[in-house]
Amino acid sequence: MPALDRTRAERLMAAEGLEALVLLSPESFRHATGAPAGVGTMWRRAGAVAVLIPCDASLPEMAVASDLFAPAFRKASPIRDLRTTPLWVETTDLADTDPAGAAGPGSPAEGEDLAGRIAAANRRDGRPAGFTRPTTFRADLCYAHLGEALRERGLGPGSRIGVELAAVSGADMAELLQGLAGFDIRDGSAIAARLKMVKTAEEIGWLREAVTLAELGIAALRDQARVGMSRRDIARLWVDAVTAASPGPRLTGTWDYVSVGPDPWGGEATAAPGDIVKVDVGCLIHGYTSDTGRTFVFGQASPDAGRIHAALASGFAAGERLLAPGTPLSEIHRAATAAIRAAGFPEFSRGHFGHGLGSSLGSEEWPFIAADSDVIAEPGMVLAFECPWYLTGLGGFILENQYLITDSGAECMNRLPTDLVRL
Amino acid sequence: MPALDRTRAERLMAAEGLEALVLLSPESFRHATGAPAGVGTMWRRAGAVAVLIPCDASLPEMAVASDLFAPAFRKASPIRDLRTTPLWVETTDLADTDPAGAAGPGSPAEGEDLAGRIAAANRRDGRPAGFTRPTTFRADLCYAHLGEALRERGLGPGSRIGVELAAVSGADMAELLQGLAGFDIRDGSAIAARLKMVKTAEEIGWLREAVTLAELGIAALRDQARVGMSRRDIARLWVDAVTAASPGPRLTGTWDYVSVGPDPWGGEATAAPGDIVKVDVGCLIHGYTSDTGRTFVFGQASPDAGRIHAALASGFAAGERLLAPGTPLSEIHRAATAAIRAAGFPEFSRGHFGHGLGSSLGSEEWPFIAADSDVIAEPGMVLAFECPWYLTGLGGFILENQYLITDSGAECMNRLPTDLVRL
Repeated sequence: MPALDRTRAERLMAAEGLEALVLLSPESFRHATGAPAGVGTMWRRAGAVAVLIPCDASLPEMAVASDLFAPAFRKASPIRDLRTTPLWVETTDLADTDPAGAAGPGSPAEGEDLAGRIAAANRRDGRPAGFTRPTTFRADLCYAHLGEALRERGLGPGSRIGVELAAVSGADMAELLQGLAGFDIRDGSAIAARLKMVKTAEEIGWLREAVTLAELGIAALRDQARVGMSRRDIARLWVDAVTAASPGPRLTGTWDYVSVGPDPWGGEATAAPGDIVKVDVGCLIHGYTSDTGRTFVFGQASPDAGRIHAALASGFAAGERLLAPGTPLSEIHRAATAAIRAAGFPEFSRGHFGHGLGSSLGSEEWPFIAADSDVIAEPGMVLAFECPWYLTGLGGFILENQYLITDSGAECMNRLPTDLVRL
Repeated sequence: MPALDRTRAERLMAAEGLEALVLLSPESFRHATGAPAGVGTMWRRAGAVAVLIPCDASLPEMAVASDLFAPAFRKASPIRDLRTTPLWVETTDLADTDPAGAAGPGSPAEGEDLAGRIAAANRRDGRPAGFTRPTTFRADLCYAHLGEALRERGLGPGSRIGVELAAVSGADMAELLQGLAGFDIRDGSAIAARLKMVKTAEEIGWLREAVTLAELGIAALRDQARVGMSRRDIARLWVDAVTAASPGPRLTGTWDYVSVGPDPWGGEATAAPGDIVKVDVGCLIHGYTSDTGRTFVFGQASPDAGRIHAALASGFAAGERLLAPGTPLSEIHRAATAAIRAAGFPEFSRGHFGHGLGSSLGSEEWPFIAADSDVIAEPGMVLAFECPWYLTGLGGFILENQYLITDSGAECMNRLPTDLVRL
């Protein structure tokens, strides 16, 4: 199912005077259509896929996908206006091409029969005579489809169109502007990001499943890590536990940043008594990643390690209690910073204390819990909130949970304590 | 070690009248410096890292990296002119901050001592008073460093600079053009791609190691696949064999597209007698991916399956014999197409019959073996050459090897036969 909220889209477009929005990144395509973007987006160059969302919600959406992914699109998406462009991949669908009274196996006519079935399939699928496939994909046809669909919806010269320019490279801008010549093209990237910011129940379910699986792995690491193990072996405890509990193909990936001992950047340390163990890990369910951070210590923490963790914990508590609808994210940043500084570290500065969670390029999705954020927390947002500090000579420290902003506050999706737990 | 060939860079720049080249993608950064680009490039937005290559090879290169990755850069790269910008991540390096006669554990002064050591580290590392970290990274500072370094190298207003615009989004172009105001900015993306096209001995070694590992997995799949197994189980034979033989952290990833039976797009088929098994897989060594395709059949192939494979094999033979320095890639495309059409399939059209191999976003790197390619094969190029065809109702078919173009011809890096092998 698409995750895009058409009412929200209309409101965001209207606020900027846009008559339509054109989404071009594979992430936005999937978000708005519910269908996979496909291999044409492998290079992340614009024009392999597109979605058109008119501001007027009575006008239908339109999507451009490759011929290869059209069947998957029709199965996955409620968007009925699909226009296709050819990919480099040669395909033939032999379904329903069995000629009546076809020659049997081994008969002289059988070889010709296969070529005939292929020709019949090509005619049925609308392949013109002399058709040749492009080197990769046809961005020019994609933009032509967009222009045509805009005009069919009554939008013409001068219509103000928001385009997700964050997904178009500077090397490709001229082709896009030529393909959409006449329209008043504005940058719709911020709207594309704001549309993804509030999650559907399905997306929230995936993020919940992902973090539950990641915590199962953290608990296994906590219970099985021993002095004398290598950093790599300790990290494997997490991934092995997650893989063993894997919910099948829904688990589309994992990532782990585990440090052991005074070098917070990994290396190949062997765990010793007193070592700090930083665990910052995520599981991806259907491409949606969790993000959780915990800090452990082998035996007794040094006083310095205890002080750092306590300072971060006070920042964490100060920020966590602000997680609720209506709170500016910048205020959470300010509160966490102030608390850590007040705990004895007046020069501490972190750029953001967390970020949106979803299905993005990396583990961190806009918006950020940062001093310059203009975002106000809304119900349905899922945020990772984190207080990390990496001290070479002492170790990596992190406290990080993920939260669903609810109508009345925030629901923590994590179950494990954020204490400096002894191993 | 950097893989970038400065002499080649000079030649390519001179041919377009460029006085310098600015590389901005994480792939180009690693290629030109030998150092990791780091977490600042997570979102693939320009301005987190940069490399400046003057055309005049007597002028030194310059790189911009984050403060977090500066130590890794200095260890990995011979480029001495490194300028840094701050990331959002708070770090402190406590090395050499132990004050003489420091208070011992438990003494009242010890807490203050930690704060004092942090302050000393910040002073030593040049952190100014009132320093605050940015939400993500500082593209503005990156471009300022570039402008300053260009001017220090005698380049000024009107100097023609090639910039890798394929790595700058349309949403970020204005900031880049403002940061490099006065210079004559041209698109250097094609030069960036051409620089990566010819591989170093080290890169060739990684691609060789990757394909050897992938073929070990293909042999395991060939030997262990049985009728009655699910598509997923058959794919796991490959990945399990590869993982078991894994050369440690050098293996940075794997990917596999395996189909079983008449649906070439996977699904969850169970293998039956006569089923075609398509195996298109790759291993990544240090981020460099192999790409190999093989087609198997459970027992006796149907006559139609035999005809498709034979046609692709004739295209493969026609193209393979042209793989040599001096051959236009377009000619290989023409020969393979002509042979497959002559084998009884006159409407067959594939956009490309292969591509460069390296460390890119996806498995397929520019250049392509395509009708519209202007690239001539050169020694040192590593190309995947492939003849695939996906027929719904019959199965997925592929023959694919990877080749090193040598001074006198081409060396196939694969060992397994490309025949339609019976399982």
